[in-house]
Amino acid sequence: MGSGESPLSGVPVPGAAGETRSSEIPFYGGHQGGIFEPRQRHTQFAAFDVVTSERSELTALLQRWTAVAADLTAGRAAGASSRSNAPGADSGEAIGLGAARLTVNFGFGPSLFGVGGRDRFGLLQRSPVPLVELPPFPGDQIPASTSGGDLTVHVCADDAQVAFHALRQLARSARPVAALRWTQAGFSSPGPDGGTPRNLLGFVDGTVNPTAKECETFVWVGEEGPEWMTGGTYMVVRRIRVDLDAWDATSIKDQEDVIGRHKSSGAPLGRTRQSDSLDLSARTSDGDPVIPLDAHVRLASAQANWGSMLLRRSFAFDDGLIGQGGSAGLDAGVLFICYQRYPVVGFIPIYRKLASADALSRFTTHTASAIAAVPAAASRHGDWVGRRLFED
Amino acid sequence: MGSGESPLSGVPVPGAAGETRSSEIPFYGGHQGGIFEPRQRHTQFAAFDVVTSERSELTALLQRWTAVAADLTAGRAAGASSRSNAPGADSGEAIGLGAARLTVNFGFGPSLFGVGGRDRFGLLQRSPVPLVELPPFPGDQIPASTSGGDLTVHVCADDAQVAFHALRQLARSARPVAALRWTQAGFSSPGPDGGTPRNLLGFVDGTVNPTAKECETFVWVGEEGPEWMTGGTYMVVRRIRVDLDAWDATSIKDQEDVIGRHKSSGAPLGRTRQSDSLDLSARTSDGDPVIPLDAHVRLASAQANWGSMLLRRSFAFDDGLIGQGGSAGLDAGVLFICYQRYPVVGFIPIYRKLASADALSRFTTHTASAIAAVPAAASRHGDWVGRRLFED
Repeated sequence: MGSGESPLSGVPVPGAAGETRSSEIPFYGGHQGGIFEPRQRHTQFAAFDVVTSERSELTALLQRWTAVAADLTAGRAAGASSRSNAPGADSGEAIGLGAARLTVNFGFGPSLFGVGGRDRFGLLQRSPVPLVELPPFPGDQIPASTSGGDLTVHVCADDAQVAFHALRQLARSARPVAALRWTQAGFSSPGPDGGTPRNLLGFVDGTVNPTAKECETFVWVGEEGPEWMTGGTYMVVRRIRVDLDAWDATSIKDQEDVIGRHKSSGAPLGRTRQSDSLDLSARTSDGDPVIPLDAHVRLASAQANWGSMLLRRSFAFDDGLIGQGGSAGLDAGVLFICYQRYPVVGFIPIYRKLASADALSRFTTHTASAIAAVPAAASRHGDWVGRRLFED
Repeated sequence: MGSGESPLSGVPVPGAAGETRSSEIPFYGGHQGGIFEPRQRHTQFAAFDVVTSERSELTALLQRWTAVAADLTAGRAAGASSRSNAPGADSGEAIGLGAARLTVNFGFGPSLFGVGGRDRFGLLQRSPVPLVELPPFPGDQIPASTSGGDLTVHVCADDAQVAFHALRQLARSARPVAALRWTQAGFSSPGPDGGTPRNLLGFVDGTVNPTAKECETFVWVGEEGPEWMTGGTYMVVRRIRVDLDAWDATSIKDQEDVIGRHKSSGAPLGRTRQSDSLDLSARTSDGDPVIPLDAHVRLASAQANWGSMLLRRSFAFDDGLIGQGGSAGLDAGVLFICYQRYPVVGFIPIYRKLASADALSRFTTHTASAIAAVPAAASRHGDWVGRRLFED
């Protein structure tokens, strides 16, 4: 080995060559990224266990993570903007790939606050009331190893390698304070002209999402607080395996009755355009409901849920095979991610109903789960994500 | 459920909206796709077990697969060009996504011919001499469940959902003749201006690949035959887990000595440009080799291997986590795929040397493996992949 070290400054930062600013989504200010923006093509979700009992180590981690995420989302190498420019601070596989609309958001799971347990970091009194543990739902097959997490990291980017690279740098900089608990990658391909992506059921997914104005009511934490959560939101993540073999053996007509939309156009049953509104009271000439009583869109609709709306931002996942021999099938489905202001009137009651009544539930199994309080973004360089929880 | 079926003709075929022809790679004629073209952004590799003993069912499967691949690579729905346009023949998640440079190639593993076993389909006498079982190599950790396969399918596309969709349709149409044995997804992001992708080691990967003219010597089967393999080649697939934690803890200088190239520029050590040729005899002023004796590029170079060249076409893979608790790490690395005319003077001797002598082998573990005879493409509509093996 030679005696010298190549300085990191000799490694071009990602995005140095020909990147357009439009590939960057601002990291600082307002809400955290990866929530309201149009879905990127790739995602990496990770839940971490905090393995220290020192509050100062936890806050130092959040400061490191903030700095790394600020660098990466601006198309720079991890560590590029810090004074301690250690060789190898960035693993290099994203050199030249640009920001690729990278977003990173961070969240706090109930276990970080010690809900139901000891007050690990002196945060129990600051635990937000809406952050409840998700209850078990009918049909769940969720091992502890893919459930929960003290900290959540949600990476999105239009380039798979940029997304992986970001998760890798964040996992590195977590040490030795936090360890990976479970992860899940996903993808989403926008339709023509940036249209709504289709999920692996083959149906458009995410048509009825709250507008920016509706998010003020249904997604972002307001003056109800706690103060450190204002401008934040609550994330629910569910990995939903779809029995693709059974689904593919179902006729398109029957699939459409399960979903409540036409497969081709994405329009509600009985309508012609994807943007047409749901008419849950429509009847056929025989007097039957046009949209079946157990159709997914009916049961999940705001009309059927006291006007409650979730901001859904799901991806497809592909985890290879499940089973072996002649019965092996694709282990794939929907990485369901949603954001809401009040999980107790959002995901929890809506999904409790869906889990037992939704025609789609015959084809799905939930295999991983997390909930987290996602605070607002760091306000500016020098601020850090979650600071108001610890310092204010 | 209603009495009618939505005809598949009501579902727009993928690529119907605004697709440019440049997103299509021809399926018929010449060599199969996904070998010599510039790497696409995403891949799906699958190995299948043939579970019938009927030769006619096997050939019918190859005809179905050919028809499906011809449709999909042209941006059409699976089954779109067949007369039997059954509802639900295509699962629909690629509607509107276009061809996305989709390629599909098919191969035959040694076990299909009954090498070392019984003559399952009357093919033993037609087994190509170069198609040998891969021997065990030092350090292999390859369970039978991720090794081999009677049939291989290699999908590549610039869109992750298009690639998954293609694998899904092919797995469906394999039934009940063949069952999935193992699969592996991967990704690869081209550098700026279509430059060589970087692997998860952070280094450019695939700089020295044979030219079209060199492929005539090193990749494509010629008059040595067997006749049914002319224009074909032999594929080797290895899933290589990289110990990213150990690699990331290694200084860039030491990483460069392991690889034999500069990380930033991709140039051979001591040179300045990625395209500069390897000078294995170069010495420092102290008389030491500029490229260490155990550097990866030295041991893998054509100069060190009797002039033998492999066509390498690797992707990164990300399989989530390995291990649990504080020791959990990312299960990721290189999905190494190479093509060659003679595996016994190609991958086998080169990797036998690398497995014991390559400095990089300290960081890598091979966890999945396959070899296959990949014949030439079907010549035209009506022909099918592998027909010459069965009929000529």
